[in-house]
Amino acid sequence: MDTQYNFLETIDYDKETHTLVILDQTKLPNRTEYCKLTTAKEVWDAIYLLKVRGAPAIGVAAAFAVAMLAWKSTVSEITEFVDTLYRDMEYLNSSRPTAVNLKWALDRMKQCCETFVSELNDAEDSKSTSGKDNIQLLKERLLELAFAMKEEDIHVCKSIGMHGATLLSSDMGILTHCNAGSLATCRYGTALAPVYVGQEKGYRLHVYADETRPLLQGARLTAFELSSAGIPVTLACDSMVSSLMAEGKIQAVFVGCDRVAANGDVANKIGTSTVAITANYYQIPFYVCAPLSTVDDKVATGTDIVIEHRPGEEVTSMWYQDKMAPDGISVYNPAFDVTKAELVTAYITEKGVFYTPHELLQAKKEENSGR
Amino acid sequence: MDTQYNFLETIDYDKETHTLVILDQTKLPNRTEYCKLTTAKEVWDAIYLLKVRGAPAIGVAAAFAVAMLAWKSTVSEITEFVDTLYRDMEYLNSSRPTAVNLKWALDRMKQCCETFVSELNDAEDSKSTSGKDNIQLLKERLLELAFAMKEEDIHVCKSIGMHGATLLSSDMGILTHCNAGSLATCRYGTALAPVYVGQEKGYRLHVYADETRPLLQGARLTAFELSSAGIPVTLACDSMVSSLMAEGKIQAVFVGCDRVAANGDVANKIGTSTVAITANYYQIPFYVCAPLSTVDDKVATGTDIVIEHRPGEEVTSMWYQDKMAPDGISVYNPAFDVTKAELVTAYITEKGVFYTPHELLQAKKEENSGR
Repeated sequence: MDTQYNFLETIDYDKETHTLVILDQTKLPNRTEYCKLTTAKEVWDAIYLLKVRGAPAIGVAAAFAVAMLAWKSTVSEITEFVDTLYRDMEYLNSSRPTAVNLKWALDRMKQCCETFVSELNDAEDSKSTSGKDNIQLLKERLLELAFAMKEEDIHVCKSIGMHGATLLSSDMGILTHCNAGSLATCRYGTALAPVYVGQEKGYRLHVYADETRPLLQGARLTAFELSSAGIPVTLACDSMVSSLMAEGKIQAVFVGCDRVAANGDVANKIGTSTVAITANYYQIPFYVCAPLSTVDDKVATGTDIVIEHRPGEEVTSMWYQDKMAPDGISVYNPAFDVTKAELVTAYITEKGVFYTPHELLQAKKEENSGR
Repeated sequence: MDTQYNFLETIDYDKETHTLVILDQTKLPNRTEYCKLTTAKEVWDAIYLLKVRGAPAIGVAAAFAVAMLAWKSTVSEITEFVDTLYRDMEYLNSSRPTAVNLKWALDRMKQCCETFVSELNDAEDSKSTSGKDNIQLLKERLLELAFAMKEEDIHVCKSIGMHGATLLSSDMGILTHCNAGSLATCRYGTALAPVYVGQEKGYRLHVYADETRPLLQGARLTAFELSSAGIPVTLACDSMVSSLMAEGKIQAVFVGCDRVAANGDVANKIGTSTVAITANYYQIPFYVCAPLSTVDDKVATGTDIVIEHRPGEEVTSMWYQDKMAPDGISVYNPAFDVTKAELVTAYITEKGVFYTPHELLQAKKEENSGR
């Protein structure tokens, strides 16, 4: 897929050595370093420590991790082989609870195994093929699926960009929170995809990036990837949203999303709902950009979404030269919050722009039935 | 004034050496260090760099600075003496533009000079006293006034605490932004004064402190002073306000204030209006605590208040081990924002709790006419 942008590769896979290669996003913007991951524990840690982050990117990384663990497996009996893989999937799924894409990707890898085993059982000649040959075939299928999911992610993000860009016009100021850009996906991003497509169309856009405490994805990643792509960007602290809006600098908000509940409530990076409430006060449209894989119709409302809480040190001492709070202080550090559906102007997906949760759910159902 | 709290002295004055002594708040919570200031430039820098900060504390520090400069002056002619002081006052007033207390305090020192000079001119025996004796008398008056303003600040803050505490009851969760505590004043604080008085009354309160980017006054100062005083406090990032409120942890917001316009709009630390908008969405009362000296009836609305913008490095690299944003990135860094009067539930002052800007302005007028 041609693009004018020289996006960094976030996730790659070395077929020779069966190694998962990820861009270490904790080192940005100061160093561009890649990590080679070869075990389930290394992948779990990389996800938990946000070396790879962003719901879509985590999903693709997990798919490759399953393929990698399959290729590295020495188990020669098919049932034991898949059972071992299922346990690895459960372990990987425990790394971060809020984003649904991780589970969605692992479920697709599991489905691939289940379909394969079921085909084997159905096939009359299954007994004639050795267990080892079957396992080799499954390994190949799993790796193909992981590569297909990466390609699919790029296409989905580009489609989100095309649909989202219809809401843009020149000279708009766009606010975004956290990083839902190319670094959060395999290319283009979700929330930033409309900006990339808009710039390709020749619109003059200016992005305001919330720094996004405590892990500073806005400062370290969004500001970095947009300025690298030649898109004008200004960094602001999360608390400056009202001031920016009062000054008339923001015409629309675009954010990504980790999980959408059946009623349209949205779990996304902590602070998103504060932005949504502020945009609502200033009557500025608030758009949630997400692949349909992010819609979780099994969860009724936002209050049913499990919110990950992380160590207080991320707030008090991480990144700093010195401690920035008194010893032993109690810290509240949820990684996500829930934005009420009533605050969402529209959901921008690969299938189009949906103005109500009902329309979004219909599209999700159509996708489910079509697969 | 008796108190159960062992507050740190924020501002002191050494009468022997005529030195202004301030607690260096940029070093907290890691080190408790005092700075000795002896020149106008040192005081200007200490205010600009937030070594002394908080509108009331800045006012008192400026008053002492004027007294100090008077005592250190070697000018022996009264007109030249006061003119030199007036130039020092203008210089000090340029250190931070938004808080009105700085100008208010300097104006009181200036008024003291003007009254003295006018009395001199009126007095029949003015010619009989030497210029040097008159200057000595004025020096004494200025130092007395500075000490009186410090005592007044303590009384005003305690009164704000008494009035504010009438709005509290046990088991409330209180959100505050920035530091409007004892460290921002000479004792008790403004926004935190009701909490201190409430705790003295035996209420069980829990304070949630916004960390307050970029200068982290909430993490470094509010969390520090409250935990030192034995008041339960939890630190949160500024972006977590909506999440805290959605979870039902917050029953009221108390903030300080740098300037109130005649229509009731409030300039306070950047992020305050985001908090106010969020509180409004969740129907949680939002209280502004401020001495009447903070009310500026010469400024019609919040949009007429000059907002200080500060260097981008405060956002991208200050406090950090490494740069947290790409080189050369544009940064938006206003130090204050304006909260619309419609979002303020009540103004808590030393003269009582006022539910409308009109009532607040009336109290201000009564104070002006009473002086």
